[in-house]
Amino acid sequence: MRFATLREADGGTTAAVDLDSDGVWRRLPAPDLSAFLRDGGASTPAGESAAEALAAADAVPVLPLPAPGKVVCCGLNYADHIRETGRELPTHPTLFAKYADTLTGPADEIRLPAGLRPDWEAELAVVVGRELRGAGRAEAAAAVWGYTVANDVSVRDWQRRTLQWFQGKAWDRTTPVGPVVVSADALDPAAGVEVICRVDGVERQRGNTRTLVFDTAELLSYISTFTLLRPGDLVLTGTPGGVGAGMTPPAHLADGALLETEIPGIGVLRNRIVHTDELAR
Amino acid sequence: MRFATLREADGGTTAAVDLDSDGVWRRLPAPDLSAFLRDGGASTPAGESAAEALAAADAVPVLPLPAPGKVVCCGLNYADHIRETGRELPTHPTLFAKYADTLTGPADEIRLPAGLRPDWEAELAVVVGRELRGAGRAEAAAAVWGYTVANDVSVRDWQRRTLQWFQGKAWDRTTPVGPVVVSADALDPAAGVEVICRVDGVERQRGNTRTLVFDTAELLSYISTFTLLRPGDLVLTGTPGGVGAGMTPPAHLADGALLETEIPGIGVLRNRIVHTDELAR
Repeated sequence: MRFATLREADGGTTAAVDLDSDGVWRRLPAPDLSAFLRDGGASTPAGESAAEALAAADAVPVLPLPAPGKVVCCGLNYADHIRETGRELPTHPTLFAKYADTLTGPADEIRLPAGLRPDWEAELAVVVGRELRGAGRAEAAAAVWGYTVANDVSVRDWQRRTLQWFQGKAWDRTTPVGPVVVSADALDPAAGVEVICRVDGVERQRGNTRTLVFDTAELLSYISTFTLLRPGDLVLTGTPGGVGAGMTPPAHLADGALLETEIPGIGVLRNRIVHTDELAR
Repeated sequence: MRFATLREADGGTTAAVDLDSDGVWRRLPAPDLSAFLRDGGASTPAGESAAEALAAADAVPVLPLPAPGKVVCCGLNYADHIRETGRELPTHPTLFAKYADTLTGPADEIRLPAGLRPDWEAELAVVVGRELRGAGRAEAAAAVWGYTVANDVSVRDWQRRTLQWFQGKAWDRTTPVGPVVVSADALDPAAGVEVICRVDGVERQRGNTRTLVFDTAELLSYISTFTLLRPGDLVLTGTPGGVGAGMTPPAHLADGALLETEIPGIGVLRNRIVHTDELAR
């Protein structure tokens, strides 16, 4: 089963479900998946909420979760990426925050001022389906509603200005997410899911979630120790090796670059980098 | 002029204004200051929105801004605190995020699992009154709606588990804010405002905002470079020297400790630390 937020012909959006993952999208009673989950959508079988099938022309996926209350990201969670940053394997997950404003759609341009050094970070993202606080592994695992693709595009020069990465990680509309959310029963990250990033058609990252230091249940459980997770919140699970900053010499996303982020079984994000002076200060 | 969110006798809350800062609170047309600002309250003179005066019994300030979209915090912003952490003066502000869930009221208990090492960080907080993106200093200065008191209570052991402080800074309901918001024209942090912290009656911090490395206008302008600030967002400006972690031996907030955070001209937060097993995992 797959879920999405689809753009309709009138410019509005609707939450939708593809019950058999065969491309037939049915309308759900909410304008997007954030609203659907906030209103308790995760606690009813999707088949009961699904209405008429949408015409294929209306099935254009946009940012599936436009309004998560929390977007928590894990850094340094793949052994190979940790090695390329020159660090040792961690005993606790390294966490930082993004905003709903940081997210953008699966085919949107990523617009940034010229002169920055944006880098790629392909990631599996977990969508929370139930409230979680102080949850153990089993409860956390059961609270996973689904999985989607994200790219934690990072403005490296700002990320490294200070000890805290946040200012390089929270540029508005720079983290693409989507194109769909697959239900938790349709994907098994512990068994292994490939996470792939291509820049201008050249593969730069290919990792597998079975090598995650902290798996999805552990991450949700750990985060829920200090803060309440709610339906629709997003947890980004970290990026594998192969980022631009780890290349010799270091590379970054140039003006016009095509960033593709893929997880087989979920889909592909295709985002064009556009340098713009609109945002220059 | 002062603003607050007040608890009423029926258990509900109302936004309120004290037009002459003389203790006469008048009802504003919103349940709290977050809703008041979200609905454009900052763009009408408060006198025009103010209704009847409230009885003194109804004038109990609670968390003034229960739902900020963004809470951005600056670390390492007082020269003396920077020295006590053993670092050099920074060229860029060190920023990290909290959630609306992280905040708590001016007289609320701060409940944490036993065995953690919570520490105090008294701070001046800025309340944003207008949308800001890519703003220069002058625009940012004009967007300051008011000032309030905050204590960036930090769970040091979690803060130091990894390179990123976030997991020590974002424990639900541990950052007290309030008791009121004074309007921007009523306080001048550039000229100098004292920021004081007492633990069990003993003064531990006393700094002055005229020694801020990055002043309030600079912080808002800098943050607006990468993300949109909206009315009701909060920016915490950093803490002066004297935190528990800087003492020999390091100190932390014990079970039952009374944490007082004061800025003359705004007011005092009085929060009791309560260790509890409720939240143990």
